[in-house]
Amino acid sequence: MEYKLAEVLLMLVVIFASAKLAGMACKKIGIPSLVGEILVGVLLASIMINGQSIAGYLGLYDYSSGTREHGHYFEVFETLAELGVIFLLFSVGLETKVKDLLSVGKSAMLVASLGVVVPFVLGYAYISFIYGGDMYEALFLGAAMVATSVGITARVIKDMKLTDAKESRIIIGAAVIDDVLGMIVLAIVMAMAKSKDSGSMDVGSILLTTAMAIALVLGVMLIALKVVPKIHDYFEERARQKLAQDPKYVPMEFSIFALSIALCLGIAWLAEFIGLAAIIGSFLAGMLFADYAEDYKLEEKVDAINTFLVSFFFVYVGLMVDLSGINGELILVTVVVIVLAIIGKYVGCGLGAKIGDRSIDMNSINIIGVGMVPRGEVGIIVAMIGLNMGIVKPELYTVVVLMSVLTTIIAPPILSVLFKKKYGESCKIQPSD
Amino acid sequence: MEYKLAEVLLMLVVIFASAKLAGMACKKIGIPSLVGEILVGVLLASIMINGQSIAGYLGLYDYSSGTREHGHYFEVFETLAELGVIFLLFSVGLETKVKDLLSVGKSAMLVASLGVVVPFVLGYAYISFIYGGDMYEALFLGAAMVATSVGITARVIKDMKLTDAKESRIIIGAAVIDDVLGMIVLAIVMAMAKSKDSGSMDVGSILLTTAMAIALVLGVMLIALKVVPKIHDYFEERARQKLAQDPKYVPMEFSIFALSIALCLGIAWLAEFIGLAAIIGSFLAGMLFADYAEDYKLEEKVDAINTFLVSFFFVYVGLMVDLSGINGELILVTVVVIVLAIIGKYVGCGLGAKIGDRSIDMNSINIIGVGMVPRGEVGIIVAMIGLNMGIVKPELYTVVVLMSVLTTIIAPPILSVLFKKKYGESCKIQPSD
Repeated sequence: MEYKLAEVLLMLVVIFASAKLAGMACKKIGIPSLVGEILVGVLLASIMINGQSIAGYLGLYDYSSGTREHGHYFEVFETLAELGVIFLLFSVGLETKVKDLLSVGKSAMLVASLGVVVPFVLGYAYISFIYGGDMYEALFLGAAMVATSVGITARVIKDMKLTDAKESRIIIGAAVIDDVLGMIVLAIVMAMAKSKDSGSMDVGSILLTTAMAIALVLGVMLIALKVVPKIHDYFEERARQKLAQDPKYVPMEFSIFALSIALCLGIAWLAEFIGLAAIIGSFLAGMLFADYAEDYKLEEKVDAINTFLVSFFFVYVGLMVDLSGINGELILVTVVVIVLAIIGKYVGCGLGAKIGDRSIDMNSINIIGVGMVPRGEVGIIVAMIGLNMGIVKPELYTVVVLMSVLTTIIAPPILSVLFKKKYGESCKIQPSD
Repeated sequence: MEYKLAEVLLMLVVIFASAKLAGMACKKIGIPSLVGEILVGVLLASIMINGQSIAGYLGLYDYSSGTREHGHYFEVFETLAELGVIFLLFSVGLETKVKDLLSVGKSAMLVASLGVVVPFVLGYAYISFIYGGDMYEALFLGAAMVATSVGITARVIKDMKLTDAKESRIIIGAAVIDDVLGMIVLAIVMAMAKSKDSGSMDVGSILLTTAMAIALVLGVMLIALKVVPKIHDYFEERARQKLAQDPKYVPMEFSIFALSIALCLGIAWLAEFIGLAAIIGSFLAGMLFADYAEDYKLEEKVDAINTFLVSFFFVYVGLMVDLSGINGELILVTVVVIVLAIIGKYVGCGLGAKIGDRSIDMNSINIIGVGMVPRGEVGIIVAMIGLNMGIVKPELYTVVVLMSVLTTIIAPPILSVLFKKKYGESCKIQPSD
């Protein structure tokens, strides 16, 4: 089949426009836009016309052999979707300053750690129990239940003008730690899953990948903290000196934004190459630039790229949801997983908050526990990696997507009620808080 | 062959990083960065190691059959390159306001028109003469010699702080008209070329495509002028009213940027679909938003996307340059084409300026004539479309790339000397100018 630009453009514009419209419609009724974008993907793959889905007509699938195969333009679409999620995690990294990470305080650290451990254990135990010991799939479900998507909670906090509340500071601090811990958990789980092929657990290679993951994370943090500021100051000083000698000196136009994209792609490649996930790399690349993201308007620029690319990722997430696997049993599993995801975060984080500060009241514990519940995109990404590795079954992938979407929808209204209970209808922070 | 994200990321990061480095190095020595990016493409395709080019190792080409075929990742790369040039022309469109177009004045209009006609005729006549009447290829060469890339000249004018000089205003005005005329010429040439397959000139279908092209251009201009402001004012007024009724009203978050991307892709598809070029569509989509580009920071955002994508396009341009076709005859053709490209613009534009204003002096004519010489990307795009249609031979494509690059390098220093001759070393504009 010949490559036709008109066909590729039609595929892109249909997906982009319907995803954005659905996302806007969701926002209008108070639901995060990614829900609408995922739904578009589900519909494109499920609505069948004359034996072909709409995604098939767009060239993403090929039904000519009787079963669904990848179509001519699937890889083009997949690349844009993967770039979308790489840039999405890059922008999360840009918001994660290492110095903030090191100064979050005991409470946030405990909230993050217990909020990672409890859901992981619950998810792992439940899937091990129902699927009779398929350890690898259970590990991925555990990992998918770990990562809080703080963007949703942060918007509620911002809308209620409660950024300075004690609970808000703990939630934001914990979420940042949680992101880093989530990446490390993902790396370890991937390392263990890779040993599945060899039949027996290869402890040596698991330890090696885990060590590389931790070394990469700590290495990048160290570079961000100690080396990047020195490089930055050196070039600024040099430009100042040259300018003093020659008032007409124009510093070499070194585009920081282009450099950051190169490192984002480069470290994403490195992470993928050594057996980690590309998103771990782009997240770390973002951390390298976090201290200077504002000075060089990097977040604004990456957001512009994301406006274009990230919808392709969420449609891709939806495309992979297999509605045909849904039956009574799977609905039960979904309900249990959602309940465990909520209870796991709520109990883990609440416990962390209580241990961190014995004098904390129940209202604050509730706020912190609920605020950490939304999973959003990261849980889905973990499940998708497991799906693409052939370890997570399509049905369980669908369960994780539903869990991520529903925790993300449920938490904000409850959080809003809890904040009002604590701070009153007008949400005024008392000096004592 | 299996799709591997690590391989795709490696391909992207090697191309992106080397293109940006080469672009920066060129800027450092005063040459436009696109020259370096094109050169990277030429080298990636030409440097052979063990019977494979570097582009082959990156998965863009496959040499296993003995001849060079497209590799596994060629289409992924091609899509990013095509999106790069689509967004590039979108950003040119965003700078093209229809009301400015209608108010450029007689001189700019004459400079643009004669600056299109003379190079087209010279290019067409020369290729017809040497290639013995291959009309279609000659038409494409004519079209490739038409479009001025005013970005280069605009930077010289800005650097010399001469934006308000009479010549500068004429050049900028003429360049805008020139862009639109260039798109129409391209559309007509494509329509004629498509009739080549049918053996005989199908006058009816040529007229139809030409009519559609002109209707699309005029239609978009009319919509931009009359309809877009009304839609904009309607929504602004509605939001104001709702806000007056309910102080808490939050207008539906309608992302203008996402809408502009959707229209950019949509009109690009439409243009491609009806037999025009995708870039004509994205250019027109840009014009639709030109009046509001500043209010919504659209140019900044599109620039961010371009920082990522456009280098892939220029590397793609370089990949297609076939150095093996270069011989004495082709060098002669290249020299003649470059001379004709310079003389054609200089004479056409100079004549236009003189007819438009009989009192204009020779210095001003020189400035306008030389200022319109740089061809930059648009000439290359035209030649590439002809190459992909199988009408422009690889050698002639190489000639056009060299012509575009060299006119772009040669013009700025001459322009700078001419401006200094007219306005003195300090470049002060006298009140009389």
